[in-house]
Amino acid sequence: MSKTHTLYQHGTLALLVPGLLDGTITMKELLKHGDTGIGTGEGLDGELIILDGVPYQVDHEGNVNVVNDDFTLPFANSHFAEYKRLTDIEELSQAELDKKIGAMTSANTFYSIKVHGTFTNIKTRAVKKSHKPYATLGKTAEDQSIFLRESVEGTLLSYYSPQIFDGAAVGGFHHHFLSDAHDFGGHVLGFGGATGNVEIQQFDTLEQHLPIHNKDFMNYDFSDWDILGEIHNAE
Amino acid sequence: MSKTHTLYQHGTLALLVPGLLDGTITMKELLKHGDTGIGTGEGLDGELIILDGVPYQVDHEGNVNVVNDDFTLPFANSHFAEYKRLTDIEELSQAELDKKIGAMTSANTFYSIKVHGTFTNIKTRAVKKSHKPYATLGKTAEDQSIFLRESVEGTLLSYYSPQIFDGAAVGGFHHHFLSDAHDFGGHVLGFGGATGNVEIQQFDTLEQHLPIHNKDFMNYDFSDWDILGEIHNAE
Repeated sequence: MSKTHTLYQHGTLALLVPGLLDGTITMKELLKHGDTGIGTGEGLDGELIILDGVPYQVDHEGNVNVVNDDFTLPFANSHFAEYKRLTDIEELSQAELDKKIGAMTSANTFYSIKVHGTFTNIKTRAVKKSHKPYATLGKTAEDQSIFLRESVEGTLLSYYSPQIFDGAAVGGFHHHFLSDAHDFGGHVLGFGGATGNVEIQQFDTLEQHLPIHNKDFMNYDFSDWDILGEIHNAE
Repeated sequence: MSKTHTLYQHGTLALLVPGLLDGTITMKELLKHGDTGIGTGEGLDGELIILDGVPYQVDHEGNVNVVNDDFTLPFANSHFAEYKRLTDIEELSQAELDKKIGAMTSANTFYSIKVHGTFTNIKTRAVKKSHKPYATLGKTAEDQSIFLRESVEGTLLSYYSPQIFDGAAVGGFHHHFLSDAHDFGGHVLGFGGATGNVEIQQFDTLEQHLPIHNKDFMNYDFSDWDILGEIHNAE
């Protein structure tokens, strides 16, 4: 197993659903598993994107902050970048991009996509940090800010997970964005047109880490929840 | 991450459903990830159980064979044993044992159970190896032998996976058995009474490896299948 063939994941999307939002991994630890990644902070404190080993947070006011080693997260992905050129794209919407990549790539394993270029009519969101006792994901995510740009240069960082892992991860694509000027980004809700180059990195291993020292998580009874339904409403 | 906190899994239960039964990992490679484990051979060739680094296969005739390094498997779990004593049990049925362990343990992370003792009215199965072109899991599993013992000394080796991973793994318990005399075993369908000592090993990490060099797997369109329904019929 090569390190660059492994996608690391801390936590699951499922645990966010009932509001298990404690930060259970530090950024320092997360960066040991990759120089590239995405995530959210404790209490859904903004949207994280790690590029070239630097962890950026887009907070609910739209500010882009570099976070410290002791910043904690309930859910995150990271990996060591070794992307390969896939294709060039011109004026593709998010749905068109997802479809084009899907047609070029197996749907049955995990991979990451990195697109650098110009994005038009791009819409992102970032949630406002909540505090204990946490509300559910659905409730907390209502307190989100939406950001829009007509045209912006930047990097789209995405993870694709096979449908069978939906619930643990996001089945399908999960896109985060950061502008080159570090003044815009977040969890991507959509874009009208992306023009630039697409790189891909395919994984053969998911290293799924769970917060077994977090009592709220370990004692939680998930059986009453429609976890997948709630995730798809919130994402 | 300690090695003994990691459960390694090659393949998914989901890929067995449509009959992607090529052996995609060798026993030699699997043993690099643990000295303890379970699995099935290429074409559902029997039921495997690895104890103290020795890989035993219960074939469809009920013979217990030690397999070679080049034996291949489409699906397997392994880990490095570091069990801790959990409890003693007396005359517990499989359902009672599952319930007792569940009451003592978090349902939200992966763990392994090892029970050594006397098992009464234990029923196991092993499937007969099929060859390419493979039929579906449901069809191939019809060609299984059922074995029964009134009373036998042996080891029950089980993995528990949280429900959110159902499909990738077996949500809930997955039990294999090997008699001390190495003359009986297989995938456990049930037992009337187990008396002995129960050990547990909890994991914080699932290392999920996928057979990305197998074209049949990578190109397969899973979207037409009710994967979870099929798994629960077959298991």
